Amino acid sequence: LAKDIKNEVKSDISKWVEKGNRNPNLTVVLVGEDPASATYVKNKISACKKVGIQSDTITKDPSITQDELLNLLDKLNKDNAVDGVLVQLPLPDHIDERTICNAVAPEKDVDGFHISNVGRLCLDQPCLLPATPAGIWEMLKRTGIETFAKTAVVCGRSKNVGMPIAMLLHTDHRHERAGGDATVTQTHRYTPKEQLKMFTKSADIVVVAAGIPNLITADMVKEGACIIDVGINRVKDEATGKFKLVGDVDFDGVKQVAGHITPVPGGVGPMTVAMLCKNTLMAAQKKIAY
Amino acid sequence: LAKDIKNEVKSDISKWVEKGNRNPNLTVVLVGEDPASATYVKNKISACKKVGIQSDTITKDPSITQDELLNLLDKLNKDNAVDGVLVQLPLPDHIDERTICNAVAPEKDVDGFHISNVGRLCLDQPCLLPATPAGIWEMLKRTGIETFAKTAVVCGRSKNVGMPIAMLLHTDHRHERAGGDATVTQTHRYTPKEQLKMFTKSADIVVVAAGIPNLITADMVKEGACIIDVGINRVKDEATGKFKLVGDVDFDGVKQVAGHITPVPGGVGPMTVAMLCKNTLMAAQKKIAY
Repeated sequence: LAKDIKNEVKSDISKWVEKGNRNPNLTVVLVGEDPASATYVKNKISACKKVGIQSDTITKDPSITQDELLNLLDKLNKDNAVDGVLVQLPLPDHIDERTICNAVAPEKDVDGFHISNVGRLCLDQPCLLPATPAGIWEMLKRTGIETFAKTAVVCGRSKNVGMPIAMLLHTDHRHERAGGDATVTQTHRYTPKEQLKMFTKSADIVVVAAGIPNLITADMVKEGACIIDVGINRVKDEATGKFKLVGDVDFDGVKQVAGHITPVPGGVGPMTVAMLCKNTLMAAQKKIAY
Repeated sequence: LAKDIKNEVKSDISKWVEKGNRNPNLTVVLVGEDPASATYVKNKISACKKVGIQSDTITKDPSITQDELLNLLDKLNKDNAVDGVLVQLPLPDHIDERTICNAVAPEKDVDGFHISNVGRLCLDQPCLLPATPAGIWEMLKRTGIETFAKTAVVCGRSKNVGMPIAMLLHTDHRHERAGGDATVTQTHRYTPKEQLKMFTKSADIVVVAAGIPNLITADMVKEGACIIDVGINRVKDEATGKFKLVGDVDFDGVKQVAGHITPVPGGVGPMTVAMLCKNTLMAAQKKIAY
């Protein structure tokens, strides 16, 4: 699916350029030298290049002040050669992430973190959606998973994944920004394990974004349910002693019961990157009227 | 509780005025001659006066254009003698309500409908909260209803009641705008009745804002649960042939099972008006940094 989306974006960009437009531009701002952040940025840039998005990375020393960063964003907001602006999180402690997210122009905010995009999402209006929930949504729609009048559980209430996907799933399909019309239960760190199981056991769709390996096991899942694993956890493999990436779901156990399940790595991750490409094209084409 | 809140607001306003400030001002804009809207506005103004809020109502002919209304709001936004601005909904069809809600300055938006206030609510930031969910929240807190790690069902997904109360109930108590840490299920018109019952039957708290008389009956409620009825429905009394106001809950039946229950009329309604007064004082004191 991620490949399909990237191919569609690539084809749309070709047509866009044939019409006399320049290639979309994504400018990524990376503060500091966190190796995980550097890897994420590298993957995003690489995917963008493949579909015809021209990408720049501006790397800043972690000593940059908040005002300097705000000035940089102001310049990028005003730069007509820049369509999408992405500030890789996390930022150093002396910089307020919310202030920075709100300083990216909403129409260039390909991460969907600006308060206007959050407000629009929650009011069922067209918006730039955060790439991870957008990717989950696309996955459900393109696989033909029914959400209408179904039950869904979203484990995790983060503002970039749990909250937005719960919002997409429960809202009205007839609204401007269409929703899934599912009955949605949102669980979190304080949901007792027995309660969590009670909800997941009867759910048609379970989206897990908790950051807890093996949170969801086979005994917690309804036969035929759709299980979407957003977790990325680095754990030691007991057999080999090496580190490996796992999700929040016991994949081998749950796949015996579930109707659909996403792997980690290779599931939601590639969809997220594909949706970032799609968001950048949307920003370049000014698809949303702000 | 509504009286308590109004008395607190009255006392706070006295202190505020003793310090040399003028009384808070709420300006209500009423378009057209809908009798229900006129009654609501009258009740709001009357409550405001009693606590020391100076209130003006600007009544406009339904033929007012959107631009004329926007100009009026612009003037009110710039007027330092006005602390709170409330545009009574609904508006005539030729006026876009979302455009109008976004045209009230966020710091004067005592209805909490501006996209910035919606975004802040959903990001767990301090904000002017819509008065109805704010009233429900105060009711829970002041009654000592535990929400932490409890289960709650919110019936209805409207943007002024269902969505905000679900947001308040499920979010983190340690965040800037504190939440209730409940596990929350949001149901709506497409939730099958059997599913609804499954969820309400095991819920510690049920908030009903669906606009459907007798949606919640005794067999759907857990022993000792807290039931909050936001519905206001005008129905014909079979016995007398007269019209009366009822909520969404079968009050007489459910009160036998519930631990707490709110009546209609007289429950959430007065709390809503009290919270509007509180919001106006907050706006006057500029309690929230926008």
